[in-house]
Amino acid sequence: MATLGDIGLAAAINILSALIFFLAFAILRLQPFNDRVYFPKWYLKGLRSSPTQTGAFVSKFVNLNFKAYLGFVNWMPAALRMPEPELIDHAGLDSAVYLRIYLIGLKIFVPIAFLSWAVLVPVNWTDDGLEQEKNRNVTSSDIDKLSISNIAYGSQRFWSHIAVTYAITFWTCYILLKEYGKVASMRLQFLASDKRRPDQFTVLARNIPPDPDESVSELVEHFFPGESSRSLSYSSVFMFFLEVVCNANKLAILVKKKTRMQNWLDYYQIKYSRNQTNRPYMKTGFLGLRGNKVDAIDHYTSEIEKLSEEIAAERKTVVNDPKSIIPSAFVSFKTRWATAVCAQTQQTRNPTLWLTEWAPEPRDVYWPNLATPYVQLTIRRLIVAVAFFFLTFFFMIPIAFVQSLASIEGIEKAAPWLKPVIEVSFIKAFIQGFLPGIALKLFLIFLPAILMIMSKFEGFTSLSSLERRSASRYYLFNFVNVFLGSIITGAAFEQLDSFIHQSASDIPKTLGVAIPLKATFFITYIMVDGWAGIAAEILMLKPLIIYHLKNFFLVKTEKDREEAMDPGSLGFNTGEPQIQFYFLLGLVYAPVTPALIPFIIIFFGLAYVVFRHQIINVYNQEYESGAAFWPDVHGRVVVALIIAQVLLLGLLSTKRAAESSPFLIALVVLTIAFHRYCKGRFEPAFVRYPLQEAMMKDTLERATEPNLNLKGYLQSAYNHPVFKDCDDDEDEEFTEKWESESVLVPTKRQSRRNTPLPSRISGASSPSIPEDVKDHSEP
Amino acid sequence: MATLGDIGLAAAINILSALIFFLAFAILRLQPFNDRVYFPKWYLKGLRSSPTQTGAFVSKFVNLNFKAYLGFVNWMPAALRMPEPELIDHAGLDSAVYLRIYLIGLKIFVPIAFLSWAVLVPVNWTDDGLEQEKNRNVTSSDIDKLSISNIAYGSQRFWSHIAVTYAITFWTCYILLKEYGKVASMRLQFLASDKRRPDQFTVLARNIPPDPDESVSELVEHFFPGESSRSLSYSSVFMFFLEVVCNANKLAILVKKKTRMQNWLDYYQIKYSRNQTNRPYMKTGFLGLRGNKVDAIDHYTSEIEKLSEEIAAERKTVVNDPKSIIPSAFVSFKTRWATAVCAQTQQTRNPTLWLTEWAPEPRDVYWPNLATPYVQLTIRRLIVAVAFFFLTFFFMIPIAFVQSLASIEGIEKAAPWLKPVIEVSFIKAFIQGFLPGIALKLFLIFLPAILMIMSKFEGFTSLSSLERRSASRYYLFNFVNVFLGSIITGAAFEQLDSFIHQSASDIPKTLGVAIPLKATFFITYIMVDGWAGIAAEILMLKPLIIYHLKNFFLVKTEKDREEAMDPGSLGFNTGEPQIQFYFLLGLVYAPVTPALIPFIIIFFGLAYVVFRHQIINVYNQEYESGAAFWPDVHGRVVVALIIAQVLLLGLLSTKRAAESSPFLIALVVLTIAFHRYCKGRFEPAFVRYPLQEAMMKDTLERATEPNLNLKGYLQSAYNHPVFKDCDDDEDEEFTEKWESESVLVPTKRQSRRNTPLPSRISGASSPSIPEDVKDHSEP
Repeated sequence: MATLGDIGLAAAINILSALIFFLAFAILRLQPFNDRVYFPKWYLKGLRSSPTQTGAFVSKFVNLNFKAYLGFVNWMPAALRMPEPELIDHAGLDSAVYLRIYLIGLKIFVPIAFLSWAVLVPVNWTDDGLEQEKNRNVTSSDIDKLSISNIAYGSQRFWSHIAVTYAITFWTCYILLKEYGKVASMRLQFLASDKRRPDQFTVLARNIPPDPDESVSELVEHFFPGESSRSLSYSSVFMFFLEVVCNANKLAILVKKKTRMQNWLDYYQIKYSRNQTNRPYMKTGFLGLRGNKVDAIDHYTSEIEKLSEEIAAERKTVVNDPKSIIPSAFVSFKTRWATAVCAQTQQTRNPTLWLTEWAPEPRDVYWPNLATPYVQLTIRRLIVAVAFFFLTFFFMIPIAFVQSLASIEGIEKAAPWLKPVIEVSFIKAFIQGFLPGIALKLFLIFLPAILMIMSKFEGFTSLSSLERRSASRYYLFNFVNVFLGSIITGAAFEQLDSFIHQSASDIPKTLGVAIPLKATFFITYIMVDGWAGIAAEILMLKPLIIYHLKNFFLVKTEKDREEAMDPGSLGFNTGEPQIQFYFLLGLVYAPVTPALIPFIIIFFGLAYVVFRHQIINVYNQEYESGAAFWPDVHGRVVVALIIAQVLLLGLLSTKRAAESSPFLIALVVLTIAFHRYCKGRFEPAFVRYPLQEAMMKDTLERATEPNLNLKGYLQSAYNHPVFKDCDDDEDEEFTEKWESESVLVPTKRQSRRNTPLPSRISGASSPSIPEDVKDHSEP
Repeated sequence: MATLGDIGLAAAINILSALIFFLAFAILRLQPFNDRVYFPKWYLKGLRSSPTQTGAFVSKFVNLNFKAYLGFVNWMPAALRMPEPELIDHAGLDSAVYLRIYLIGLKIFVPIAFLSWAVLVPVNWTDDGLEQEKNRNVTSSDIDKLSISNIAYGSQRFWSHIAVTYAITFWTCYILLKEYGKVASMRLQFLASDKRRPDQFTVLARNIPPDPDESVSELVEHFFPGESSRSLSYSSVFMFFLEVVCNANKLAILVKKKTRMQNWLDYYQIKYSRNQTNRPYMKTGFLGLRGNKVDAIDHYTSEIEKLSEEIAAERKTVVNDPKSIIPSAFVSFKTRWATAVCAQTQQTRNPTLWLTEWAPEPRDVYWPNLATPYVQLTIRRLIVAVAFFFLTFFFMIPIAFVQSLASIEGIEKAAPWLKPVIEVSFIKAFIQGFLPGIALKLFLIFLPAILMIMSKFEGFTSLSSLERRSASRYYLFNFVNVFLGSIITGAAFEQLDSFIHQSASDIPKTLGVAIPLKATFFITYIMVDGWAGIAAEILMLKPLIIYHLKNFFLVKTEKDREEAMDPGSLGFNTGEPQIQFYFLLGLVYAPVTPALIPFIIIFFGLAYVVFRHQIINVYNQEYESGAAFWPDVHGRVVVALIIAQVLLLGLLSTKRAAESSPFLIALVVLTIAFHRYCKGRFEPAFVRYPLQEAMMKDTLERATEPNLNLKGYLQSAYNHPVFKDCDDDEDEEFTEKWESESVLVPTKRQSRRNTPLPSRISGASSPSIPEDVKDHSEP
């Protein structure tokens, strides 16, 4: 067991490294040439332009205003200053609600810390359980005197721990209840906000049954009777549909190629415009080193023209070939009410045909999965469930195999001719010291990606649901391999084996006994992963390096520079499980080792500030799900609460305080009942859309904008990104030309790379409708 | 272990008693004075009249036609003759689908019996495991030579059992899949059948939020905009509502009293009409023995008049008192489409207010539960869950307590003055022999009622859902206390204790080892409960005795005789768990002791014939849920399949055939995947109503009956039964008068006692609309 001194040293190291990260960040962010690394969000929103164009040459790259360095923690209050409604407007509801998870951590654990320090620490400290143990030659550290370990066997003092557990449970549930209500109302308000969004009017219809006589589009048209039909039901509803086209892979390649050509053309044009004396020439062969010398601008112009023709031909093929059309469609309705009705009801007798669901937001759509048929979904889910089980419990086996290969003997066996190289002592040491660790590290780095591939294979149709699914798998993996794996040392499959052969009442005991012993380990874990790790996040080291490398070698045009930016995004699938892990640690240790709680509080506080800053200044919003992840977040905190109660039950029963068991079992039952209540009370707000709301909104819109051309508004919302890109490209061809004519005016144009649609949509969804659309609607 | 001879003896006894029951039934059912006991269904339908009025005096009571006795099993083919569509028409879809459960039993187990006898019996018989055991002084019976017990430890022959288990699983799943599809399509066809039913147009809205300014009816009217409103959404929808009134208890008492008075009046009037010379007199005091002598007919006439006034006053109070109105309403719409939309969507932001769901059929409504508020539901569910847990595992404790009280010593202690009586040896023997058993027996008899009370407390709003819930609880109770309790002897709480202290891998082993040993016990159980029990069911002994007692002592009028009939009903809450228990036994024993399967097949065959007969001739249909119970039935068979697989896994691992475990685990996973597929594929048909269907139906109706007065049709469908009874009573007063005038014509009038509404509704819902309603609709 570590002493207080050990923990103090670890804390000092980690605080120091966190401070270094913050200092480095404070200096780097003020340099203009890093501006696109630390403020990409503002560039993406078109609210900030490159500072390289103004002022003296040096000040383009280095900030010489020394005053700016003085307030190096200024970013912290700045990050906290933006009020929540503005934050929702700036970065979306998802981000704002995501930050609330950290806030909940603070709300839950700050009072718990006070309570457990006020009650449990004195109770633990004044007992002499460890003294008694010491007589039996069991060693212990100072920190254990603060923990439940110091209570003697069968003591009546355990009642105080049970009372505190009750208080913790009720307080946590109270906070969760409040938050669930708050988030639900935020979501409803967001959905009902006066912004018009295409997904409010659109339903995704899947598994449209094939018909030999009719195309998918005709089928859809006949299935949902339009305005002309005299049907009594959808009479106030008109619809038009957008076919979903697959097999657009070749098209996507062509479009990409064209974009590249376009970039080169831009580059040469800029070069030429700077130096009008000699026209740029290039060689057409390998990497521009061999072949005929041609005029570069002419060459690329002709190449682009050729490609444009090819793309047009390919588009026609894709659109007209019935084989490339998959049996899914985005169906848009005239009113929100009709959409809500259609999305939430079953259409036909056969519940596997004409599946209708809310269409995800356009940028949230995961296109490749739209075609999966129903039966395949069950099979795929089964396969993924089995695969995930093996991944969680048996991932150590292939890694151990790789590690054995990566040993000296393994390499010598596999490749005897490498022997002389390997035998060099420096290389030998490297292989022996690093390779085995690297195999594991590599696996852990790729784990989120592996989980994401699993979710994709399962057939979810939106990025948000993919991330939610990956998050819950990641949490499970962490729980089994980090939490249980740290408590009971040994690989997961060994644990699994021992759990299967242990009785249901012994498992909590085995775990419960080990928990107080691992407190110091988890304190160190929190400091490394939670303190220094979070501080490293704000430094954005990887994007910083990559941006500057790209900037140096590749960036030719302003557009390229924009594309060299890598703002990243929130990463719900990795971030949320991390937070949940801290909830689990906090709730498990609050009644056992209160000394751990302050470390967790520091994590939550720090992470809240850092991520608020990142969300405001850095991260790009990839999609907007309207906080659809909240039921997951809530559920996992409740699960953590139940785990904590069960483990305390196990711990106490080994401490000969078995008469307390019924109280803790009752608490578990109450917690489950609380969860069920919350599920019934709040979850519908996240999966359904109230009709009354929809109706009110429709009526309001009809009154305020009687001449709205909804058709024009929705026409192109759900186009496959490839077609979008084509369109964009054609726009951009013109814009680009225009730009290159009015040379070198810094572009404020919004980027559409990471947010291919939102920019257009948010433009269109603001109260004023683009003029050209409006004109069409008022003939 | 029982030998083949023992089983043969038990079989002989049970077959004999079953035969006696059938013979008694065959004789009794032919007697005219039993006609109302054995054919009540036909009386209820108004298709059969009392035979007492025709022919010679003796033949009114005894059937003297000896030819009729010859074909005493004629009822069997007669029961099988009615084709299914006619059966649905005659007794409802619920009954027809219920019978299919027995058919599935046959479909599953007949091929399984052939397979396991063809494969497993030779394999088992030819091994010598038991011979080896015998050398170690383990005794065994002949029947064990046919079972898996005869296979030697670690033998390769176990692979044949695994192969058979695979075959059984796939065959069962195939049958289940087919049946689920069939039942789902039957349900949809039934719902879409051309009968108009009030529940197709009605939604039950609960938890209507209170408003100080508006009454519930006004709230409903404003919430669902009617025809007059220019709202765009429900524009094709009009609605009217029916308030639900509680606190109608006093009214119900008054109505009951009036009915009784009416019966007496009828009795005296009949008496007077038979003997016109002396007017009947009666005494007004205690039981008609004391007090003033008055003219009976005048007395009751005036009493009834007084009561009628009281009832009218009370009705006004109940209707007008706002406190007696609960915040729920039945809301009827103009079209099925609108109803489907409203029932399947959420109305307001707060998912606990304005809860809408399909209204149950009028006679299916459980009125007392309509007022339960949302938060109470969670609490009640928690309480019931905890109560059921204790009921299942600890019911033996109070019974043991009662048993200890019911012992000689207990009684002597509690009531010393009884000592001389008790000490009489005959009474002593009785107390010692019977009382303890009676306590347990009484509990088991009242168990379904206790479970029903639990379900009622939970707040379900329809009788069908109450019965479904009770059925699943009863199944669980049976599983724990009969199945597990027989396998591992000991009270349930002792089992629970041992399970908690056993490891997850040991539990299947403990159970698996005991399974082959208990085969003979279960064979006896099947013969007693499944053969003789089913045969006793058809004899209707209890209703027979009660009917004749009532007939002798109480029946005064023809109406009384009708009320003395007790047709009973299907009793889903007790019947279905019984069948499921046989599925469980069959699936568990099919790979272990194939000798058990034929007994189960006989049960399914016998029960199918008996219940088909009962449904056609006896049982009254209490409600029609459209086979909504099928997902439960399907689910429980799948669970039985999984239990069978897990127990076989346990058994094989004790037989040192552990290398087979992965194959059985894979089978479990596959079975679960199958269940999930079925859930997704078919369950929606039982909980949702496809919109397309509704729309087609609406369109069709509009075309065929353009002048339909739906309002008139739906007006009184959802009235509280008390008001219904009042109305009925007033009708009946007139009908009764008319009847007593045209003296003693046997009434063919349909009974409304057990089916207060269906008669009226089925009349109204048949293609032709009552003339008076039609007249109003065509002014």
